[in-house]
Amino acid sequence: MKKLIINGKIVTATDYYKADILIENEKIAAIGKKLNTDVDEVIDAKGAYLLPGGIDPHTHLDMPFGGTVTKDDFETGTIGAAFGGTTTVIDFCLTNKGEPLKNAIKAWHDKSVDKAVIDYSFHLMIGEINDEVLSELPSIIDNEGISSFKVFMAYKNVFQADDGTLYRTLETAKKLGALVMVHAENGDVIDYLTKKALAEGKTEPIYHALTRPPEIEGEATGRAAKLTELTNSQLYVVHVSCQDALEKIAEARSKGIDVWGETCPQYLVLDKTYLEKPNFEGAKYVWSPPLRDKHHQDVLWKALKSGELQTIGSDQCSFDFDGQKSLGKSDFTKIPNGGPMIEDRMSILFSEGVKKGRITLNQFVDITSTRAAKLFGLFPKKGTIAVGSDADIVIFDQNVERTISAKTHHLAVDYNAFEGMKVTGEPISVLSKGEFVVKNKAFVGKAGKGKFLKRAKYGEQLDINQEVKILM
Amino acid sequence: MKKLIINGKIVTATDYYKADILIENEKIAAIGKKLNTDVDEVIDAKGAYLLPGGIDPHTHLDMPFGGTVTKDDFETGTIGAAFGGTTTVIDFCLTNKGEPLKNAIKAWHDKSVDKAVIDYSFHLMIGEINDEVLSELPSIIDNEGISSFKVFMAYKNVFQADDGTLYRTLETAKKLGALVMVHAENGDVIDYLTKKALAEGKTEPIYHALTRPPEIEGEATGRAAKLTELTNSQLYVVHVSCQDALEKIAEARSKGIDVWGETCPQYLVLDKTYLEKPNFEGAKYVWSPPLRDKHHQDVLWKALKSGELQTIGSDQCSFDFDGQKSLGKSDFTKIPNGGPMIEDRMSILFSEGVKKGRITLNQFVDITSTRAAKLFGLFPKKGTIAVGSDADIVIFDQNVERTISAKTHHLAVDYNAFEGMKVTGEPISVLSKGEFVVKNKAFVGKAGKGKFLKRAKYGEQLDINQEVKILM
Amino acid sequence: MKKLIINGKIVTATDYYKADILIENEKIAAIGKKLNTDVDEVIDAKGAYLLPGGIDPHTHLDMPFGGTVTKDDFETGTIGAAFGGTTTVIDFCLTNKGEPLKNAIKAWHDKSVDKAVIDYSFHLMIGEINDEVLSELPSIIDNEGISSFKVFMAYKNVFQADDGTLYRTLETAKKLGALVMVHAENGDVIDYLTKKALAEGKTEPIYHALTRPPEIEGEATGRAAKLTELTNSQLYVVHVSCQDALEKIAEARSKGIDVWGETCPQYLVLDKTYLEKPNFEGAKYVWSPPLRDKHHQDVLWKALKSGELQTIGSDQCSFDFDGQKSLGKSDFTKIPNGGPMIEDRMSILFSEGVKKGRITLNQFVDITSTRAAKLFGLFPKKGTIAVGSDADIVIFDQNVERTISAKTHHLAVDYNAFEGMKVTGEPISVLSKGEFVVKNKAFVGKAGKGKFLKRAKYGEQLDINQEVKILM
Amino acid sequence: MKKLIINGKIVTATDYYKADILIENEKIAAIGKKLNTDVDEVIDAKGAYLLPGGIDPHTHLDMPFGGTVTKDDFETGTIGAAFGGTTTVIDFCLTNKGEPLKNAIKAWHDKSVDKAVIDYSFHLMIGEINDEVLSELPSIIDNEGISSFKVFMAYKNVFQADDGTLYRTLETAKKLGALVMVHAENGDVIDYLTKKALAEGKTEPIYHALTRPPEIEGEATGRAAKLTELTNSQLYVVHVSCQDALEKIAEARSKGIDVWGETCPQYLVLDKTYLEKPNFEGAKYVWSPPLRDKHHQDVLWKALKSGELQTIGSDQCSFDFDGQKSLGKSDFTKIPNGGPMIEDRMSILFSEGVKKGRITLNQFVDITSTRAAKLFGLFPKKGTIAVGSDADIVIFDQNVERTISAKTHHLAVDYNAFEGMKVTGEPISVLSKGEFVVKNKAFVGKAGKGKFLKRAKYGEQLDINQEVKILM
Repeated sequence: MKKLIINGKIVTATDYYKADILIENEKIAAIGKKLNTDVDEVIDAKGAYLLPGGIDPHTHLDMPFGGTVTKDDFETGTIGAAFGGTTTVIDFCLTNKGEPLKNAIKAWHDKSVDKAVIDYSFHLMIGEINDEVLSELPSIIDNEGISSFKVFMAYKNVFQADDGTLYRTLETAKKLGALVMVHAENGDVIDYLTKKALAEGKTEPIYHALTRPPEIEGEATGRAAKLTELTNSQLYVVHVSCQDALEKIAEARSKGIDVWGETCPQYLVLDKTYLEKPNFEGAKYVWSPPLRDKHHQDVLWKALKSGELQTIGSDQCSFDFDGQKSLGKSDFTKIPNGGPMIEDRMSILFSEGVKKGRITLNQFVDITSTRAAKLFGLFPKKGTIAVGSDADIVIFDQNVERTISAKTHHLAVDYNAFEGMKVTGEPISVLSKGEFVVKNKAFVGKAGKGKFLKRAKYGEQLDINQEVKILM
Repeated sequence: MKKLIINGKIVTATDYYKADILIENEKIAAIGKKLNTDVDEVIDAKGAYLLPGGIDPHTHLDMPFGGTVTKDDFETGTIGAAFGGTTTVIDFCLTNKGEPLKNAIKAWHDKSVDKAVIDYSFHLMIGEINDEVLSELPSIIDNEGISSFKVFMAYKNVFQADDGTLYRTLETAKKLGALVMVHAENGDVIDYLTKKALAEGKTEPIYHALTRPPEIEGEATGRAAKLTELTNSQLYVVHVSCQDALEKIAEARSKGIDVWGETCPQYLVLDKTYLEKPNFEGAKYVWSPPLRDKHHQDVLWKALKSGELQTIGSDQCSFDFDGQKSLGKSDFTKIPNGGPMIEDRMSILFSEGVKKGRITLNQFVDITSTRAAKLFGLFPKKGTIAVGSDADIVIFDQNVERTISAKTHHLAVDYNAFEGMKVTGEPISVLSKGEFVVKNKAFVGKAGKGKFLKRAKYGEQLDINQEVKILM
Repeated sequence: MKKLIINGKIVTATDYYKADILIENEKIAAIGKKLNTDVDEVIDAKGAYLLPGGIDPHTHLDMPFGGTVTKDDFETGTIGAAFGGTTTVIDFCLTNKGEPLKNAIKAWHDKSVDKAVIDYSFHLMIGEINDEVLSELPSIIDNEGISSFKVFMAYKNVFQADDGTLYRTLETAKKLGALVMVHAENGDVIDYLTKKALAEGKTEPIYHALTRPPEIEGEATGRAAKLTELTNSQLYVVHVSCQDALEKIAEARSKGIDVWGETCPQYLVLDKTYLEKPNFEGAKYVWSPPLRDKHHQDVLWKALKSGELQTIGSDQCSFDFDGQKSLGKSDFTKIPNGGPMIEDRMSILFSEGVKKGRITLNQFVDITSTRAAKLFGLFPKKGTIAVGSDADIVIFDQNVERTISAKTHHLAVDYNAFEGMKVTGEPISVLSKGEFVVKNKAFVGKAGKGKFLKRAKYGEQLDINQEVKILM
Repeated sequence: MKKLIINGKIVTATDYYKADILIENEKIAAIGKKLNTDVDEVIDAKGAYLLPGGIDPHTHLDMPFGGTVTKDDFETGTIGAAFGGTTTVIDFCLTNKGEPLKNAIKAWHDKSVDKAVIDYSFHLMIGEINDEVLSELPSIIDNEGISSFKVFMAYKNVFQADDGTLYRTLETAKKLGALVMVHAENGDVIDYLTKKALAEGKTEPIYHALTRPPEIEGEATGRAAKLTELTNSQLYVVHVSCQDALEKIAEARSKGIDVWGETCPQYLVLDKTYLEKPNFEGAKYVWSPPLRDKHHQDVLWKALKSGELQTIGSDQCSFDFDGQKSLGKSDFTKIPNGGPMIEDRMSILFSEGVKKGRITLNQFVDITSTRAAKLFGLFPKKGTIAVGSDADIVIFDQNVERTISAKTHHLAVDYNAFEGMKVTGEPISVLSKGEFVVKNKAFVGKAGKGKFLKRAKYGEQLDINQEVKILM
């Protein structure tokens, strides 16, 4: 089975050029001009960009939270992702203290195996470190192919791990070859501030933001970076929302410490005032870290430009406004935290970033796909357009304009956080492993076609039978 | 004329994979596996890396200085460059105050036109800004294809421009689309310190370093960055040698200012003690900025890793030890400033950087080639291995070991600054526009085959008839 | 009862001049030349300095710790203090969770009331904040005159409070007018590192230092400063030992945040290698934070000079080497933390600071006395030589040399941390409230003469019946 | 001749207490309660503050500039100063290149000797350093008592010295014991920007501010601080107007470098919008550095609080609006630079600083008097209220309110920069060397009573025949 994409402009994290792509058996077989081949199908890109499929390194699909479950699961969630140009998601596998980690991993496989329409992998939450956990980890990395751990510094009495646990996780990850991810907010202070707010009768959504000020995200980020320095390990700070956190990341990176930072589209274009929307609509924008004052947006954009931030995740974690978000109607702490961003992640970065000259086209590819592939052990199978790589290709029309809306999005959730926002640039068709998932803006994929991806260790290139495994 | 390179591993600033390269008429026509084509020649890379030819953005060939002229000209200099894996150099065209800039450019064309064995371009020195200069610049950028200007903050009464001139150059460059390069040292202070040293009878080479402390490189770098911020312009700091300068660059970049930094191999592996070598041998290491205390090396390496520095230039400016450096035997200020680094630039970065795990293989390509191509308007004609790009390809054996020596180097100059240093990794063969310049470690090129390159404006991708001109 | 001190040179935090001091009924009645008065006693200072009595804001006398009790109590401890020129100590009153704070205060009054030979006051430890604690605090400040609270960020499962408690203490202190003191080290990380060290068989004293690296003191200091910023409150960081912590203090102060820093003599002149002394002698130097690498000393001195650090406390907490320190012979975590520094605090700062030109004579007075008086609500009763102030005066010979030794010190503890160190400058006689405690180097005081001092709120000058209460 | 001041509250940089002051023969003879003495006059302070007379370290009296001469000379200028509570001024003695420095000093003595109503001293401008200058300096410091040099980094082709001259001045000052003062703005850039503005027809006063942005004050300040670090010398940055400059000072101080910063009342309460006043009124606010955006004010206040700035000078340099400022009616570069601030310097700092809780009362004294006395070798003769010091005493009513106006000020100039501003706190009477200059708000002094003060070297306390000379 051979396909040829013609008339496209190939974009990678480095390159931008005009050439045809030959696909053979799920993979890219050749790139060139006038590739003289018999093929089964010729796809005319009509001058569109050909981008590596996006990698969303931060999703929560089919996840229980606060007595409910996210509206989007691995089927609807990955359909939405595909429409947005994303062909790989890495979801967070939650664990329970006292239970074997493998049980949690099995549960996550069960949620996803027959549902995903694009490829996926898991990060593993670490809530505690003890002898049992330590005995499981080597095999999880080597055999299960899960080489990234998530530690929460917030959500006291729920997910939160103490600094000793974080330190030990970093130490262990260094030894085993994994990347430690942190949710960096000071959970103890948040716990006090939320209780205090409620005691004072402050129950509206805006208090979600006011009880989690940026200073404590900055503080926790600096703390995690310092422990990374002490352990000579590697850290990935998820959902960086503010200047305070960014400065700590930049400071660590300047010293040559392996600290990486991810931001999310919501922090780049929305701000704290959204939580003040009347009629409880602010609840649609309740997630953690919260939206910030507008001036932080510019700082985050500059950090994407300068390379102080490297990736963009969606932090997709969708709850219906009606029936789920409403659980917190009289108490903001009961509002399920999260929103639906998986589908619009790339469009927003393209439209607000590339089109407005804040980042280059190559940076766009790096931020939405390549860097995540490299950091999480998926490269070069995913994350690029190169010979031998999976044919995960987005045919992207850079000029089309559209308005984001829940009426037209492809997720199950009942609202869209970017409702009404106009964006330029949109995927027309999306191929996963050489097959269309989205074709001319219509879904043509199938649940279960997406497969679980075993990933390489931190710092290694995934071996794709090319004898080019390399320590990066 | 078609050639096929097989059995190589292609490396770009992003990718690393195994595939064959088809070359047709100077350019890369296709990349793939089993490219089923009739070709004139099959080149077996035997498992070596296939790298984009290096770009040395900082050379001084056939340059008059202090009453003498550099030993290496465009012929011997580019032969040395080619042996080191460099297929493009950008040389500094010196200008004289009061004379038309075009005269200087003509002189530089005259020096190079029949001599270079690889492609080349020029930066233009700006010593003053007045109405005549302003009237010439638009055409120089648009028609001559010279889109980078060099301003000296040191060499008082010779090259040094005052801050008003630097400011105005930045302002003008912003308007016209050029990149301003600075030699950042405080020339006034150096002038006093050198006179004072001589008055005190301090004439040995080490006083060259002692009269140009790192603090004043840091100071001048910060000053230039601040003027860049004020003019909202773009700056490229050449030959960054020390932490002091680096911190200023990093600070500016953090604020989103377009400040770029280049270091040189000599600052990464040599240190100030070399200037204390007996028998006047220290003179071999006299250049500006001077070599620094050893601890600066680690800081520079970390900056290459983190991206705070982006390129590596050789600052090639060779003078014979015997007969040229010796002019300063009794007065260090008379030692011609400069050294021969064009040939070993890439080997040193590979051996000390990639092999020792300080930078990745992709970063190596970015630093030695891709980033310079992008910053100086040569991309994607140069700086990558992609369809449509010039077939400037280095077949690089990553495992071979050799010892650097003047006995074996290919420059005309009579000493090597890295004499005796053992490096791993070496170009075996080098192609420029599809033709071998070096084949199996032997020179097979020809003077005059290298052509002058007109470059795109700052921030633009060079149009290579692919309809893919883009603002980066 | 009137006394006149003649022939002395008066030194305050600002002034240095020659004049006589008239003392009447415990207080300074006049300062001048040829004060023409009938007096009961004329004291000839013979050209010595007349300094305000020192204030040691950080002592642990008669304190239980790790199953034992400090060797020095309020009697021997204050005798030692007086010999060193200190006429006021502020001791830490430890509290127990779940018990009324007043019980703890009563216990501390019982320890001290008939024993102290100089005046004293208490800081109050806060281990938890709840409704009971909140109900007690106003009266403790207003009636008991205790306006400073201590929070521990280390000593997990013993003294350590979580960040929510620290936040709330800062918030409460702001409202009530108290100063929050922190022991800033990351207790969670230390807890893990000490357990790990023991598990690896690392039991010697040096592991005390190695399991409490400076980075985590810096981290905790930054965290406390950030919470101070958030609460708009006031913070006093005790025993700053390293550059890491200092930088965080300086950063906060630059923003106008009320963060103050205290260092201790031991951090200025001793270093980490002391913990490696053979025969378990390293145990003599086990306290927290631990001694640091030598380069931190210079940074601390510069901070005293520039004003980034403001006070010096002794952190007196003495345990016999023989019988107490030895509890940790086979396990460094069992070594009682602390050392005897109360007596030599001022001599060391004078000899190493003033005599070596690192700080001025006025700064010496400010650091050892005046600033502590102001910060802790004792000024101007204590901390200066001015009309109306208590006649706490040290007659200090700036030229005498002596060697510090346990053989000659006046504490009960069996070793001296500065054994063998030569210092220049020594108190000859010391007056407390107009009466000699030390006269010509002999003790002439009496247990119980020292009285408890009620202190003003943070930011207020103590009203000494002069109608000059002021908000500072 | 003896006088006794009763019922006052004495304030020094450290102390605040109630006591009487006995004055005998120009000096303070005793301080105490119920000083039982026969005196010639009893002065009832009626509860007012007794402050050390202010020291204004930055005035330009009777100074030629731009073809005119400041309106206020040593008579009217010092009368204004005295009304404001200032009893010492240090004026800038301008020098001319190529002429002996002594000529300039003589000229300045001639201007002042029979005119000043309070004591005064001179700083010496250094425009060049050569053998003649070097030969004169030792005697100027030792015999003339002038131990501070001023270097201008701005005013190109007028006062501006190059960096080599600044470096050498710092080096020389270190050796001889002088303090180097800098006007820190980048004169080369200003020169270009002003010419460019004029060429574009931008002639209004506001362009004075727009052609001297804060960034270039910051740049020049950092440059001067760096040269101070290199020479291990001492620097005093005059008229710090903005955050940019302040950050450089703070950075240097953190490293233990002797860099001091002075701000002026105008930068604390006025802002850039004043230059936009209609009808050319903006010209009243034209001085250098220019007024800044309002947000800089808060930063300067915080720096006074934290100690990053240490003094306040007036930069008094008055020109009539009518007839002098008007020289620049059609060209802002022709507006004489300067304004009248000598009289209101202390009132503004008290009212806006102490009364509004930004600084303490003791800091007020330190900033307006004590610190300048210490830095410039006048202490303890001037700058404090202590036995042996000159009886320069201000009886200051902290509660009286008044409105600043040219109608009521005591200067010769025809406008007041703070016109209409309401302040609280005012000197009621002012004594210089024990004699009233201002008594109950009326001038009772006499031209010529003020004497020239020879000052001690940098870092030394002035010997006032008390055998207490000390290196500070």
